[in-house]
Amino acid sequence: MVAKNLNFSKLKSSYLFIQIEQKKTEFLEKNPGVELINLGIGDTSSPIPQFISEKLAAAAIDLGTVTGYSGYGSSAGNPQLRKRISEVLYPNLVDGDEVFVSDGSKCDIGRLQILFGRDVTIAVQDPTYPVYVDGTLLQGATDEIVKMSCTPENHFFPDLSSLPRTDLIYFCSPNNPTGSVATKEQLKQLVDFAKQNQSIIIFDSAYAGFIQDPQLPRSIYEIEGADEVAIETGSFSKLAGFTGVRLGWTIVPQKLKYSDGSSIRDTWIRTISTIYNGPSNIAQAGGLAVLEPEGQRSVKRLIEQYMSGAQKLAVSLKQSGFVVYGGENAPYLWVRCEDKNSWDSFHELLEKSHIVSTPGAGFGMAGEGFIRFSAFATADDIEKAIEALAN
Amino acid sequence: MVAKNLNFSKLKSSYLFIQIEQKKTEFLEKNPGVELINLGIGDTSSPIPQFISEKLAAAAIDLGTVTGYSGYGSSAGNPQLRKRISEVLYPNLVDGDEVFVSDGSKCDIGRLQILFGRDVTIAVQDPTYPVYVDGTLLQGATDEIVKMSCTPENHFFPDLSSLPRTDLIYFCSPNNPTGSVATKEQLKQLVDFAKQNQSIIIFDSAYAGFIQDPQLPRSIYEIEGADEVAIETGSFSKLAGFTGVRLGWTIVPQKLKYSDGSSIRDTWIRTISTIYNGPSNIAQAGGLAVLEPEGQRSVKRLIEQYMSGAQKLAVSLKQSGFVVYGGENAPYLWVRCEDKNSWDSFHELLEKSHIVSTPGAGFGMAGEGFIRFSAFATADDIEKAIEALAN
Repeated sequence: MVAKNLNFSKLKSSYLFIQIEQKKTEFLEKNPGVELINLGIGDTSSPIPQFISEKLAAAAIDLGTVTGYSGYGSSAGNPQLRKRISEVLYPNLVDGDEVFVSDGSKCDIGRLQILFGRDVTIAVQDPTYPVYVDGTLLQGATDEIVKMSCTPENHFFPDLSSLPRTDLIYFCSPNNPTGSVATKEQLKQLVDFAKQNQSIIIFDSAYAGFIQDPQLPRSIYEIEGADEVAIETGSFSKLAGFTGVRLGWTIVPQKLKYSDGSSIRDTWIRTISTIYNGPSNIAQAGGLAVLEPEGQRSVKRLIEQYMSGAQKLAVSLKQSGFVVYGGENAPYLWVRCEDKNSWDSFHELLEKSHIVSTPGAGFGMAGEGFIRFSAFATADDIEKAIEALAN
Repeated sequence: MVAKNLNFSKLKSSYLFIQIEQKKTEFLEKNPGVELINLGIGDTSSPIPQFISEKLAAAAIDLGTVTGYSGYGSSAGNPQLRKRISEVLYPNLVDGDEVFVSDGSKCDIGRLQILFGRDVTIAVQDPTYPVYVDGTLLQGATDEIVKMSCTPENHFFPDLSSLPRTDLIYFCSPNNPTGSVATKEQLKQLVDFAKQNQSIIIFDSAYAGFIQDPQLPRSIYEIEGADEVAIETGSFSKLAGFTGVRLGWTIVPQKLKYSDGSSIRDTWIRTISTIYNGPSNIAQAGGLAVLEPEGQRSVKRLIEQYMSGAQKLAVSLKQSGFVVYGGENAPYLWVRCEDKNSWDSFHELLEKSHIVSTPGAGFGMAGEGFIRFSAFATADDIEKAIEALAN
């Protein structure tokens, strides 16, 4: 028969959050009836604001009418939505033609690798969202991945001077899992580093909507010249509770070029028109609703609710003596576990407090000794977690 | 900067249907006000049956409620939908665990290549849907693609005895673009050929719902032993007007193995959980509605309407002296153009009759001398086309 893609052997046998799901299932089999407190996977728990869910429904109803029906859309997304994303989320920074709407950041991160082919070299933050590594390895990136250590000691920003050149640099801010946000000065260093090294930054801004401090950058394009070295991915998932609806976007600037001077944006268009067909038209109608003034107000309230949970949880953890990072401009708390490795802490939290967390080591070596708590839990689960942690 | 994926140079500069879109735009710029009759891209034109659009809308409304909200689903799709696809569309042939729901066949065809890695060899029907070739080339398949010529002379089924072994064999039935359907005997030959050669068939059944003749196979799994050599993709796009909603599926049987004896299905699960996140939960609710008895009746009516258009168009073309293939168990007519190449015929139809078609040569060498007409047009456009062709 046909041989297996050898790259599968470079991956762990299963994806981190599937491992955690299995641990949960095993625990519940041994302890039937226990109600777990879910602070694990960063999955939204609050309903989509009604203003937006009603627009989603209206789009679906329209598809049942002669005048409202539409079939294939552009693989790049609805032009109106592309324009609104640029105007509302990237005012004076990005043009609508540079926005490509998709079924989510994770899916785009998978597809982006096609632009550069096999044998690219990559750098990732350590700890890091596992998809950057696994997704690129699957598609043939070299397995000598450069890890940019991000720890409390360096304020979660890597020492760039010590790093070798790579083709691609994956960078996530606000960061999953540490909850840290790079400052403008730090992002400028990153852009300068990419320019010197002729690297391309893949900037993941999925949590930009959670930034509370107006001084912190929400997009890498706030840094001058970033449009010559950076692709940015964004998402409606956490912004508007669209984790199940599936809607995100990728910015591929006009000015971004390959080493031969040709346009990267042109090959992105060729890629998505060949092996992709655009996101659901219903989801896109929801995206337009999110970007209306009423939609923006409703998602602001949603985010405030999650961030209030993050704050309460942080206070409680600190009162219990834990050292806590993040949670101020990002929905994740990054908590040092005392004297234990992070999988042991994960198990202890699960067994003693019935809390599902994510072990930091699942995000890389530099995550060892930490636990990630997601604030996307229900208010009820946050209360229960605070109570359980106090005991 | 970073180098371009060299595989882009193996592709034509743009995707066939984008080329046609450009030709349309150019024509309309020169001839403002002309109303074109669209028999080009196979895009559905009739509304989604109301029973189904209302279920889509209800799912969206539910997402705005505390009890109805859901976030991330399984990357493999809603388990209930997986089960219903197996029960309704593959009774006694496929298990729910072998069904993977996705945002569409085209997208899955892009992802499937990851299972086998670079340098795979492929065979495709000629003429063929361009995505099999372009999608695999992009991801590093060898560019010596084996073309399985399908012409009126061989009743649109290739002479397998003359073909070399390849790793993958892409096969589409009912066929896009020729509108032909392989018989059970022919598919048995194909399965036997794959077994002898230790090849894997990627069987595209996107148009299975259009088969009228109960003797013709709707799935390759109707052939005994096909589950050891075939992956099948399917789609709600043409079945239920979901081209914009985005919903399809892929069957990866338990019995399908790599040359080392390991499970292909396991690596598919690893692939989709790493670089994909499942289709929209709203679209999946629509898929469940399609598979309810009332949904099945409504899509049957929809298909009858398109097939009635295909029949009328075929009769009219034959009356005008054209040789017409397909259109009986598939929504495409494959029409021989007399004494002209297919791009010339495309232009003549556009300019003289204002009909947008698809030139056969766009689907490969063996498509030269043919024009494809799509019966997914509105009833109104079908009437206008018949009138225009009569003149």
